[in-house]
Amino acid sequence: MFAFARAVLPLVLIWVMGAAAGAAPKTFADQASTFWLDNGLQVVVIPDHRAPIVTHMVWYKVGAADEMPGKSGIAHFLEHLMFKGTSDHPEGEFSKVIASVGGSENAFTTDDYTVYHQSVAKQHLGLMMEFEADRMANLVLDDAAVLPERKVILEERRSRMDNEPSSQLAEAVGAALFQNSHYGIPTIGWAIEMAELDRDDAIAFYDRYYTPNNAIVIVAGDVTEDEVRKLAQDTYGKLPRRAEPPPRVRPREPEPLAARTVTLANPRVTQPSVHRTFLAPSYATAGPGEAAALDLLADILGSGTTSKLYRQLVVEKGVATSSGAYYRSSALGDTRFVLYGVPRGDVSLDDLMADIDGVLADVVQNGISDEDLVRAKHRVTASAIYAQDNHASLARIFGTALATGQTLDDVKNWPAMIDAVTSDQIVAAAAKYLTAKRSVTGYLVAPPASGRS
Amino acid sequence: MFAFARAVLPLVLIWVMGAAAGAAPKTFADQASTFWLDNGLQVVVIPDHRAPIVTHMVWYKVGAADEMPGKSGIAHFLEHLMFKGTSDHPEGEFSKVIASVGGSENAFTTDDYTVYHQSVAKQHLGLMMEFEADRMANLVLDDAAVLPERKVILEERRSRMDNEPSSQLAEAVGAALFQNSHYGIPTIGWAIEMAELDRDDAIAFYDRYYTPNNAIVIVAGDVTEDEVRKLAQDTYGKLPRRAEPPPRVRPREPEPLAARTVTLANPRVTQPSVHRTFLAPSYATAGPGEAAALDLLADILGSGTTSKLYRQLVVEKGVATSSGAYYRSSALGDTRFVLYGVPRGDVSLDDLMADIDGVLADVVQNGISDEDLVRAKHRVTASAIYAQDNHASLARIFGTALATGQTLDDVKNWPAMIDAVTSDQIVAAAAKYLTAKRSVTGYLVAPPASGRS
Repeated sequence: MFAFARAVLPLVLIWVMGAAAGAAPKTFADQASTFWLDNGLQVVVIPDHRAPIVTHMVWYKVGAADEMPGKSGIAHFLEHLMFKGTSDHPEGEFSKVIASVGGSENAFTTDDYTVYHQSVAKQHLGLMMEFEADRMANLVLDDAAVLPERKVILEERRSRMDNEPSSQLAEAVGAALFQNSHYGIPTIGWAIEMAELDRDDAIAFYDRYYTPNNAIVIVAGDVTEDEVRKLAQDTYGKLPRRAEPPPRVRPREPEPLAARTVTLANPRVTQPSVHRTFLAPSYATAGPGEAAALDLLADILGSGTTSKLYRQLVVEKGVATSSGAYYRSSALGDTRFVLYGVPRGDVSLDDLMADIDGVLADVVQNGISDEDLVRAKHRVTASAIYAQDNHASLARIFGTALATGQTLDDVKNWPAMIDAVTSDQIVAAAAKYLTAKRSVTGYLVAPPASGRS
Repeated sequence: MFAFARAVLPLVLIWVMGAAAGAAPKTFADQASTFWLDNGLQVVVIPDHRAPIVTHMVWYKVGAADEMPGKSGIAHFLEHLMFKGTSDHPEGEFSKVIASVGGSENAFTTDDYTVYHQSVAKQHLGLMMEFEADRMANLVLDDAAVLPERKVILEERRSRMDNEPSSQLAEAVGAALFQNSHYGIPTIGWAIEMAELDRDDAIAFYDRYYTPNNAIVIVAGDVTEDEVRKLAQDTYGKLPRRAEPPPRVRPREPEPLAARTVTLANPRVTQPSVHRTFLAPSYATAGPGEAAALDLLADILGSGTTSKLYRQLVVEKGVATSSGAYYRSSALGDTRFVLYGVPRGDVSLDDLMADIDGVLADVVQNGISDEDLVRAKHRVTASAIYAQDNHASLARIFGTALATGQTLDDVKNWPAMIDAVTSDQIVAAAAKYLTAKRSVTGYLVAPPASGRS
């Protein structure tokens, strides 16, 4: 519980179909449906009758990037405060009930959304909805609830971020990468601002964003749409709209013109490493096919031991103990594409980075072979199929898409989108977005920082 | 007209007294007084009867850093639109009147304030106030006024920023330096956002911030407080409060933990240069004496040909054709302290930066000699005295201070503050704020960027 995550599952996991193309069998994803209650709450149902269990998730379309200037951390803070009890149910009661029926629960906050979820036997779904509906409207936010919890989030920040050189570097890289949008501010918040968040901030945020017309309820598992509709109407359906949430502003990033570096020198760094992070479009901001091309490029360049980076730099050239790539495809605004490496022996970070750059340059110059492309499409789909075995994953795929500007149909059509990507599209996306000007290179080193400090 | 300025006169110019310490003669600054009208407008009067002229300035306590996310450039855009005419006076009439009485006018926008001013013969002061009061309340903001002017600001941006590699670098350095506050966004705005500013944005900004209770009127010249009070009441005094401006939020910067670099490579760069910009406190955010110490440090390190950087690197060592330092002391939030150099011949930017660093390190290690300190205090004051001969400068000094959280007394007491600074305080400020972690080093180079791209 109380997790926060800067980024979430890559959209690559959204492919929950069984076949790469053509005559796809009917899947759980295909059977997903959606409807809205009169108060504006969206409900998504993903039936799966293999076992008598359900995953119930509430997605609020608000995250750290919706925070007001000077109030960083309030989105994640409110996630904590949602466990502090309501006028009807004191703190801990909801969790006790979940435990007593053998269920599990969790919650997390990202830049774009905040999520609460439970997995329980199907007969308890209505009870979960009752409790979630209750805390959507009746949360008690007094000093007794707020002030002690502020210590908790500050401690969470200390242990996860401030005591971790790689996290410090990630924060500094994010701040340098995003020149305009709120994404440059850490999801958990800056400590100097978190320390001053108070009851009024929490109430203002709760009243503004925690309203049925700003939420998506997702139920995956042994249910039908009719069952869910009835339960939802009896619980969430009784809530009034409490506010009209403002438009979700994600200021666009201006075209970057200057390559940047960030060097974090800390005596606790025993293993230097280098990351190059490029400003890249997300599925919400990319042109047609571009995000799918970047998904495949990340896989081809840097996913696992068969990737180009691993094979060429770890196995063949022996300059790295690890090297890879990833792409955070889901966001309302622009996002990041990352290449990284950990040098072997005396290899310098700059030399390793030049080698990584060489692998990328080769793709831009020579494209992707048919064989590599087919394999990548296969890998992407194969890894995604596993999501079907996990209710929470399946629900999370839909939630992520819907909370970042995608539709149910986008999710369903995603496999076809991936399948249609050509080598030329991948090369074009790499040449357009993975340029030095658009990048921030992060160096994690032990001091002295070899002339770069 | 239509100027914008990211930073303004350093607070060093605020010293408008004639003597370094002790028995100071009564100065124009000493005689400044202030009062408020019932509608909340602040008026400052700086009498100077040497010539029958006046400078009349209206300072709105709103600048680019008060803009909403996604609306960068609206503060400066509105400055332009303030010249488009009112319901009573069509576009151009105010300017024609000023010209016809032999006066001059100008306007500028910074991150923290927006200013309109005229210099005229004293008998026209009332007329200036009438026109300024008129456009404070009755501006016409229709599409015919707004849309053509948007082309003008975009063209201004193109010519000043986008066609100028050093400006591009400055923007990228600013964006990397300010990790939390709005100061990382250029005052003129990002082009992608400026292009979408419209009538509704202009009206919303005007209605929110252009109200008497958010303005300071400063009159310097051949007037008495009584004369100004009467004229102000007859003009500005008739305006209602149109809004209650929101608190001026300047999110604090978290303590930086990682040294950063920004490299702008452009074929039009014929002369490479290097700047190291440190996040530094302003007079508004510094601890006692710290900002005054940084003012003196900037002078000692890098103001003019007698400074340490110039003497050691240009004259003695011969590694630079130019080198210096400056400190932007006035801001509502944190600000910047800059060291820079232009290399001579084949000297690399990194080698030059190491030399610049050496000059700073020497100050931190050995302090400032009594002789150097006394001379610096003298220089700072001597240069400031000239401000007295220029009404606009004098008024601007007071306006800058009042619009960035200082008081009239702060301005008057500033000479004593400077005089009290010790070598230890300068060393302490340098050691605390001018560290690699707090810095962004900007490289302006011609491509190829020598391995740094």
